[in-house]
Amino acid sequence: MAQAKWIWYPGSFELYHGMLLLNRRTSSKTYANGTRKSVYYYPMWRVDGPKRNAILYKEADIDREEVIEFYSNCVDACISVDGLGYPPNSKILLKAGHHKVYVSGFKADSFPAFYIKGNVFASDRTYIVAPSDEYSGRHAGYSDLYTDISDKVECFKFRYKTVEPVSKKPINGGILFDFGKEIFGKICIDEGSENFGEVDVFLGESYEEAIDTDYSELMAHLVYKDEIISTKSMAFRYVFFKDTDKDIEIYASLEYLPLESRGAFRCDNEEINKLWDVCAYTMLLNSREGFFDGIKRDRWVWSGDAYQSYLVNYYLACDKDIVRRTTRMLRGSDPIKKHINTICDYTFLWICGIWDYYFYTGDKDFLNDIYPDMLDIMSFIEGRLGKDKMYERKSDDWVFIDWSTFDSNGPMCAEQMLLCRAYESLGKCANVIGDRSMATKCKKRVDYMIEQINLLYWNEDKGAFIDDYASGKNNVTRHANIFALLFDYTTEIRKEKIIKNVIFNKEITPITTPYFEFYELDAMCQLGNFEYFTDMLDSYWGGMLRLGATTIWEEFDPTKSGIEHYEMYGGKYEKSLCHAWGASPIYLLGKYALGVVPTKAGFESYTVTPNLISFNEIEGKVPTPQGEIYVKANKEEISVLSPIENGTLIYRGKKHKIKKDVMLTIKA
Amino acid sequence: MAQAKWIWYPGSFELYHGMLLLNRRTSSKTYANGTRKSVYYYPMWRVDGPKRNAILYKEADIDREEVIEFYSNCVDACISVDGLGYPPNSKILLKAGHHKVYVSGFKADSFPAFYIKGNVFASDRTYIVAPSDEYSGRHAGYSDLYTDISDKVECFKFRYKTVEPVSKKPINGGILFDFGKEIFGKICIDEGSENFGEVDVFLGESYEEAIDTDYSELMAHLVYKDEIISTKSMAFRYVFFKDTDKDIEIYASLEYLPLESRGAFRCDNEEINKLWDVCAYTMLLNSREGFFDGIKRDRWVWSGDAYQSYLVNYYLACDKDIVRRTTRMLRGSDPIKKHINTICDYTFLWICGIWDYYFYTGDKDFLNDIYPDMLDIMSFIEGRLGKDKMYERKSDDWVFIDWSTFDSNGPMCAEQMLLCRAYESLGKCANVIGDRSMATKCKKRVDYMIEQINLLYWNEDKGAFIDDYASGKNNVTRHANIFALLFDYTTEIRKEKIIKNVIFNKEITPITTPYFEFYELDAMCQLGNFEYFTDMLDSYWGGMLRLGATTIWEEFDPTKSGIEHYEMYGGKYEKSLCHAWGASPIYLLGKYALGVVPTKAGFESYTVTPNLISFNEIEGKVPTPQGEIYVKANKEEISVLSPIENGTLIYRGKKHKIKKDVMLTIKA
Repeated sequence: MAQAKWIWYPGSFELYHGMLLLNRRTSSKTYANGTRKSVYYYPMWRVDGPKRNAILYKEADIDREEVIEFYSNCVDACISVDGLGYPPNSKILLKAGHHKVYVSGFKADSFPAFYIKGNVFASDRTYIVAPSDEYSGRHAGYSDLYTDISDKVECFKFRYKTVEPVSKKPINGGILFDFGKEIFGKICIDEGSENFGEVDVFLGESYEEAIDTDYSELMAHLVYKDEIISTKSMAFRYVFFKDTDKDIEIYASLEYLPLESRGAFRCDNEEINKLWDVCAYTMLLNSREGFFDGIKRDRWVWSGDAYQSYLVNYYLACDKDIVRRTTRMLRGSDPIKKHINTICDYTFLWICGIWDYYFYTGDKDFLNDIYPDMLDIMSFIEGRLGKDKMYERKSDDWVFIDWSTFDSNGPMCAEQMLLCRAYESLGKCANVIGDRSMATKCKKRVDYMIEQINLLYWNEDKGAFIDDYASGKNNVTRHANIFALLFDYTTEIRKEKIIKNVIFNKEITPITTPYFEFYELDAMCQLGNFEYFTDMLDSYWGGMLRLGATTIWEEFDPTKSGIEHYEMYGGKYEKSLCHAWGASPIYLLGKYALGVVPTKAGFESYTVTPNLISFNEIEGKVPTPQGEIYVKANKEEISVLSPIENGTLIYRGKKHKIKKDVMLTIKA
Repeated sequence: MAQAKWIWYPGSFELYHGMLLLNRRTSSKTYANGTRKSVYYYPMWRVDGPKRNAILYKEADIDREEVIEFYSNCVDACISVDGLGYPPNSKILLKAGHHKVYVSGFKADSFPAFYIKGNVFASDRTYIVAPSDEYSGRHAGYSDLYTDISDKVECFKFRYKTVEPVSKKPINGGILFDFGKEIFGKICIDEGSENFGEVDVFLGESYEEAIDTDYSELMAHLVYKDEIISTKSMAFRYVFFKDTDKDIEIYASLEYLPLESRGAFRCDNEEINKLWDVCAYTMLLNSREGFFDGIKRDRWVWSGDAYQSYLVNYYLACDKDIVRRTTRMLRGSDPIKKHINTICDYTFLWICGIWDYYFYTGDKDFLNDIYPDMLDIMSFIEGRLGKDKMYERKSDDWVFIDWSTFDSNGPMCAEQMLLCRAYESLGKCANVIGDRSMATKCKKRVDYMIEQINLLYWNEDKGAFIDDYASGKNNVTRHANIFALLFDYTTEIRKEKIIKNVIFNKEITPITTPYFEFYELDAMCQLGNFEYFTDMLDSYWGGMLRLGATTIWEEFDPTKSGIEHYEMYGGKYEKSLCHAWGASPIYLLGKYALGVVPTKAGFESYTVTPNLISFNEIEGKVPTPQGEIYVKANKEEISVLSPIENGTLIYRGKKHKIKKDVMLTIKA
C-alpha cells in the first residue's frame, strides 16, 4: 500500500480556505445611538472560490492486482474503473494489467475531494484533470497536511492550546485581562464565571486600544448561558469587559499552525537574540492558511507581504506547503481581470516568488504545476503594457511600492524594475521547465527593459533614478534606487552614485515601513554595508522592542510617542502591531550572518559565508528541505555541520569543501 | 413602500440552481456480483456555480425620508449607508436628500442575496454591481418568484401535490404500481405499509422498463423504519418493488412549477385536441428551474432543446421568468472556453433565442442585462472562425444539428446557417440597445455569410444545399435545406428546387426526431404547405399516441415495434419518453392555425391570420405579456378578442383592425 493523500481539482483547497479567510474581516462601527457593533467587511478584490465540480483520472499498468478503496467528501461522487462507475465507499479489485480510473464529484458547499487507498492507484499528485475538462492534464491538488482518510479538507488543520491571562484588573468600571503578549485565538469564558447574560468584549493589541471602547478595532458580543462560550478566533493581547462587576474568568484557546522553527540564530548581543525571537514569533502568528499581512485587521493574504514571508520562511521553517498554498490563493482563478490584490507590483512579485520557491526548495513538481498559471498571468500583464512595451498605469491598477509619497501619476521606475524582475524570474522558470522560446523571450525583454529603465529614469544631475519621467518633477525616493542595487539593474558607477546620493543622503525621505526596510537592508547587505544593517536593527527594530513590542509592527516612526504609534489609515488603532513584513531580520541574519545560500536549486549545491558583522560570536541553523545546516562562528573559529552534499564554506575568499554530516571547523 | 424583490449578483440564482440540476443525474450500474446501484453521473461540460461574494449598490435622491430594513441570507453581510456599515436585520432612517447604499455579503454554500424593505431604496433591479467589481454597472439579478421576505433563494419554489397510483398488481414476484401517466416527483411509502426493512425500487416510463430490473434506468434504495420515507424527485409512470410480498402502499408527491397554461387550442378533430394536451403536459413536466430536455435521463438544460421550448412557451404559458432563467443558466460564467453544452449549434441558437424572447415579450430590461454576455459569446465564436471568417470545426466542438448521419468532417452548411442566424439576431438586439457599430457589423456579416453559403454549399446537380463541400461527397440531407427555407437564405428559384429535390424527395432520409421536425414543419407552414404538417401530426405524433404515449418521446420511428421503441444510445430503455422538443405542435398550431404573431416587439403591434388548415373549426388563445388573444374560426366566421391595441386581423388578404377588448367578428 502506498501513502494516499486527499486530492482535489488543482487549487480548490487553497481557493476554498482563501475565500474563507478573505471574508472573515470585520470592522467595528459606532452608530448614532451610541451602540458599537462588529460588521462584516467586504474584501477589496474579487474572491475566487473553488470549483464545485471535479473530475480527475489516472491511467496505468499494474504488474500485480491491487484492491482500491474509494472515499470522497461528496455524496455525489463516482469512481469509474475501466468504464464501470461505483459510488463512494466501494472496494474494487484491479487485476494485473492496464486500467483507467476516473474520480468525479460535486460538492455545493465546498469542493470535491477524493481519497483512494491502493498501491499504484493510491490518490496523489499523479492523478490529473480529465481530458473533457478545460484544464485537462494538470496535476491533482494535494497538501502534505491532508494524508489521513479521517482528515476533513474543509477544516483547516490548526492546533489549539489553552493560554491563561497573566493579569486581571478592574479599570474604568470594567475588567481588563492581559495575556502578556500578542496572541491569536478564541477568548473563552470559564465555566466557573458568574452568569452575566450578554456582554460586549473589546480587544486590544495595546491596553489603550482595549479600554478605548469607542475606537477599539475588534470586539465581540457574548451571550453567556451557563456553559463555556467563546469568540471567533481573533488577535489580541488585552481583553476588556466593559461595565461589569461580575466575577468573570477567561482563558484563550490559542489557534496556530504547528510550524517547526527549524532555523535558529544566537549571538552575543541579547537584544538581537530577543529581536530574532520576536521576529520568529511574529512570523509564526502570521503563518496560517497562507502567509497573512497581519493578524488583527484584515488578516488577508497580500502578495507583496507574502513575497517577503516566503524569504523569511526559507530561514525559519522552510515549510513548502505554506508557500504553495499562499501562491495558489493569490493566483485565484481565471479569468484574470485585475492585478493580484489589485496591486500591479504584487502581481510582479507573485512571479518572482515562484522562482525563489523553486530555488530554495528544488520542488520541480510545483513549478511544473503552477507554470501554466504563470504564463496566463504574464499574458494578462502584457495585454496591458504601453506602446513602448513598458509598464503603463491603468485606471484599475493600484500602484503601491510602499506607504510613501511618490511622483506616481505616470509609469513609475520602481514598477518597471519589478516587472523586469518578474521577466527574469519567469525566464529562469521557463529554463527549468524546458520552455525555450519563453526563456529566450524573457531574456530579450529583460535586456530591453534594463536599457529603457536606464535611459528613461536615470537623472544625471541627481545621480539617481527618479520616480517618474512624465511629470518633469525629477523626484527621487529611495525605492527604485534600492531595487537598482538589489537587482543589479545599473552600472557600478551609477550604483556608487546611488549609495552616495540616495542611501546615505539624509534629505531623501527615509523608509518608514519594515516592508521596504526589507529591500533596503537586503541591498545594503548584498553590497557589504553591514553597519547600516546593524544600526537599523538597533534603532528601528530595537526601538519597537524598547517600547514593549511583543511582535513587530506594521510601521514604526521613532519621532512619535504614546498612542500616536497605534494610529494608521486615519484610525486611532488601525495600525497592526503584529505584521509579518517586520520579520526580515531572520532572513537577513540567516543569509548574511550565518551566510547560507543555495547556489543550485534546492541546495543541490550551496555556499556558507559566515560573517560576524558587528558580533563577537554567532551560532545558528538554516533549514533546508534536506535538513538544517548548522553554523557557528567567533573570532577564533568557524564551524559548519550540514546534512547535504556539495556545500562550500567560504571564508576570507577561501573555499572549503563541506562534507555531508561531518563537522567542518576552520580557524578564523 | 415599494415592492421589494430578493436581489443578487447577476446570474447567481440561475447558476446556483443550474449547478444543482446538472449534478442530479444518476445512472444505474450492475456489478459483477449482480447487485445494481444508482451512481452519480458527471456532467458533460463545465458547471459554473454562482459567485460566493457579491456587492451591489444604488445611489439616489429621495424627496422624503424613508426607513429601510436590510435582510440577507448571509450572516456575513453588510449594508453601508453613506459610508457607515450595518449588519443584517438593521433598520436605518434615510433623511430626504442624496444617499449611496451598498449591500455586500458572502455565502460559502450558495450565494449572497439581499432584501431591502423601503421605498426608493427597496431592493430590485435598480441596484447595480459596485464600481470595484469587474462587472461593475450590471443590474442586480432577481426573479419574479422571489418577492417575499420569507422566500429562501436556495430553495427552488416548486409546488407539491399528492397523486395516488391508478393500479397495483403482483408481477414477477414483486409489486408493480401504475400512476396512469408519466409524472415527476417523489415516491412516498405510506405510513400504513408493513415494515419491510430495505428494498430496491425500480422505476419505468414504461412497465417493461420498471420490471426489467437489470436494465431499468432509474432506481432507488429505500430503508423503511416505521415512518413515511420518500425517494428523491424522479420521472416515472410505473414503480416496481422487486421480490417482495409485503403489504406496501405508496403515493407520489408530484413536484411541479405552477405555470399557467394560458394558451389553448381546440378543433373538431379530437385526436389533435388530445395531442395538444399531451404536448402541453410534456412541456409543463419539462418546465422547471429551466427548460429541461427530458425528465428521466439527464434532466439537464440544453440550449438547442431550450430554444424550441422558448417558442412553445410563447404559445403556451408565455412565462418570462423561465426563459430568462434558462438563458442565464446556459450562458454560465466567464471565461468562455467551450461552446454551450460543448455544441456549436447550441451557442448560435442561444443568441437567436434572446432575440425571440425580446420579440415576443418586449422585455428590454433583460435584453439590456444580457447584452454584454451576448457580445462576449460572439467574441468567443469569432476567436474560432476560419481564415475565411466562416465557421470552422474545432477539436472540442460537438457538431450536433440532429441525431442523423451527415457528411460532417468539414465545416457544415447547417452550422454556417445557424451562425448567420445568430449574427442576424445579435444585429437586431444591437439595434434595440443602440449599439450601432455592432448592428452594422452584424449586417455585413450576414450578407457575406449568405453569399458564401450559396457559393460554397449549393450543388446545382442535386438542386440542393449539400452538408459539406470539403469531402467532395456532395451529400444531401434535409437539415441545411430546411434552414435555407426557414431563414430565407436563398433565392426563390432555389427554394423551389429544395422543396422538390429534398423535402418531397423520399430518397432523402426523413427526419426522425421531433427536434428537427420542429424546424421542418415551421418551414413548411411558413411556405403554406399545411398538408405536410397535418399528415405529420397524424403519422408521427399520432403514431406515438396510438402506442399509448402519455407524453411525447425523444424520437419515434414507426417501423419499430414493442420495446424496440424504448432503445436509444445503446441502452434498452435509454430513450426518454417525455422530451420537451416534441411539443412543437403547440407552437405551430398557435402560430399558423390561430395565426397570432407579433409584428413589433412585445406585441406593440401584431397580426392574427387564422387558418383552418384541415379543420372545420378551431378555437384557442395565445398568451402575451399583456393577456391572452382569443381566436375562433370556422367555415362561417372568424372572431378575435384581444386585450392589446394595434392588432390586425388578416383574412383572405384583407386587413381588419382589432380594437382592444372588443370582439371582432368577420364572415369567412
